[in-house]
Amino acid sequence: MKSIKDVHIKTFRLFALSCMEKAGVPSPTASIVVNALITTSLRGVDSHGIRLMAHYLKAIRLGRINPNASFRFRQTAASTGSMDADDGFGIAAGFEAMNHAMVLADKTGIGMVAAYHSSHFGSAGLYTNLAAKKGMMGITVSHVESITIPFNGLKPFFGSNPISISVPILGEDPICMDMATTSISSNKLLMHKASGKKLLPGWAVDAKGRSVTDAEKAVYLTHFGGYKGFALSFMIEVFSSMLTGIAWGPHITRMYPISEHKRNLGHIFCAIDIKRFIPLSTFKRRMKQMVKELRSIPHIPKTSVMAPGDPEKKIYMERSKKGMIPISTTDYEALMDVAGALGIHAERSL
Amino acid sequence: MKSIKDVHIKTFRLFALSCMEKAGVPSPTASIVVNALITTSLRGVDSHGIRLMAHYLKAIRLGRINPNASFRFRQTAASTGSMDADDGFGIAAGFEAMNHAMVLADKTGIGMVAAYHSSHFGSAGLYTNLAAKKGMMGITVSHVESITIPFNGLKPFFGSNPISISVPILGEDPICMDMATTSISSNKLLMHKASGKKLLPGWAVDAKGRSVTDAEKAVYLTHFGGYKGFALSFMIEVFSSMLTGIAWGPHITRMYPISEHKRNLGHIFCAIDIKRFIPLSTFKRRMKQMVKELRSIPHIPKTSVMAPGDPEKKIYMERSKKGMIPISTTDYEALMDVAGALGIHAERSL
Repeated sequence: MKSIKDVHIKTFRLFALSCMEKAGVPSPTASIVVNALITTSLRGVDSHGIRLMAHYLKAIRLGRINPNASFRFRQTAASTGSMDADDGFGIAAGFEAMNHAMVLADKTGIGMVAAYHSSHFGSAGLYTNLAAKKGMMGITVSHVESITIPFNGLKPFFGSNPISISVPILGEDPICMDMATTSISSNKLLMHKASGKKLLPGWAVDAKGRSVTDAEKAVYLTHFGGYKGFALSFMIEVFSSMLTGIAWGPHITRMYPISEHKRNLGHIFCAIDIKRFIPLSTFKRRMKQMVKELRSIPHIPKTSVMAPGDPEKKIYMERSKKGMIPISTTDYEALMDVAGALGIHAERSL
Repeated sequence: MKSIKDVHIKTFRLFALSCMEKAGVPSPTASIVVNALITTSLRGVDSHGIRLMAHYLKAIRLGRINPNASFRFRQTAASTGSMDADDGFGIAAGFEAMNHAMVLADKTGIGMVAAYHSSHFGSAGLYTNLAAKKGMMGITVSHVESITIPFNGLKPFFGSNPISISVPILGEDPICMDMATTSISSNKLLMHKASGKKLLPGWAVDAKGRSVTDAEKAVYLTHFGGYKGFALSFMIEVFSSMLTGIAWGPHITRMYPISEHKRNLGHIFCAIDIKRFIPLSTFKRRMKQMVKELRSIPHIPKTSVMAPGDPEKKIYMERSKKGMIPISTTDYEALMDVAGALGIHAERSL
């Protein structure tokens, strides 16, 4: 097991913002990205949290990510739009596109925006929670490069194609489903490689399709739930590649090893204005009652029945209170290397 | 293993229409329902096919289904609407609501309709395929009474909450994902009980939560893919119960044993007008290419890599050619009983 280091949120934010500034990222974009990574780490989704900072900085240096991207939104009908993300930060594109979807939804009840020429957008729940906090249902999907074996297949075709849906609820943060359609996300696999943690059986296979628990031997992931998870992943690919007109599965530029090639990813952002169906207060009150009933049912000893996102909420509370978030020493060192190259000295700043 | 009987499609249609007429169902509604059940059986989804005829006829007799329902659609914004299904046939309500969603989508790019006071709507793919055949993406979800154990739970909470997404493709019928968010649908479990077929391990549990393969001992289903399938089912419940304002999970009237109580089910129908994002011809051509590549990848011996709905397409071809669809003798006898009570004599008609 590799060791884990805790970093102070405030210190990390200043450090990361300095790196971003040195890398030529305009301050508003830098804030959006850094805050999103911190929020994600606070929610316990470490695979998509602050560890990605090093990757993003390298991607700028190599010319993969355009730090001065100018997003071009084009409304195509009363409820729909497309957004060229200009090879910028996927995270910044995600917030921008969901905001457009919410503006459309405010007028017509639903808004859907297809973003393309984008890059890795971090945790999908960032954008759906944005909508849910404004009284809408948020839905986000994205494709990912080919890393997952289709049902019955021996070669990967689709990616870990994530989906997130968030909904408001009375008295607590939105209920947020945010999941890869693989047994685990590809970033989680990398995190297991970094930390040395064992994989659960069925999560991943080697180059010949044999199930492995040693992360180092894992080459491809599997879809969750057999052919059903595969089918869901297929449809996420259709949304992400077909509505945007860009490359699918095996034709998508890989995240790793990092290169100068643009990712050219596609994502879909949808907002549904709840009050066009039912008063928002009724919706939130009934959500609270349903979730309360769900959390109260008899359960397997030493476990609990949870709503989607409950584990993340619990970690968020703990980490926010402590003001600290963890990073593996491997990821930490990678970040220090990149920062050093930018002239930011790790030991002094973090 | 109980025996299976094959019935001629044309004979069955006439027989079923006679039953519907005697039961007081107006001819247009009867045609919609009977044709939908036949289509579903032709696609090999026998759990949701012609075997449901007996159930629906009983539901009319008991006053659960209103054969003369008048659907009341109310547009609530440019892209949204609600539809009171007046306790009518869920199948007829489904087509009507998806048609409304398509009209909205035609104007604004997306349409979403929440139907309530509905009843069992058969196979969700019926409605999404309707949209896909008109050049749109169709999405349908519905809740179902409490029959599935939440992740970590020992008592059921949600139902088998199905989801379907269909998309057009060049040169073949739409690609249609249509699945329960349980390992199997509750109707499939009943079909296994009727036929005596064994369940696969993990599909269902007994009253104490222990996995069983004998369908007779199965009491509850499990969600597919552990907590991820559970999370998806949760969100389908939110769409179906919360946007419609009606009862959720444990508060929903059960399908079986059949009673006079209305089901009062909720469903969501969404249509996305593809051409607002990309020319439809481009979409369909690229879909064809992607699916061709997917179907061609190396696979486990004696299997094949398929697109969602491929097994159903294959069965559809075979059964359409033969002009025959199967029904278990148990289901056949149940249908004959109900028909007999209506004065339709089985042996003569089917």
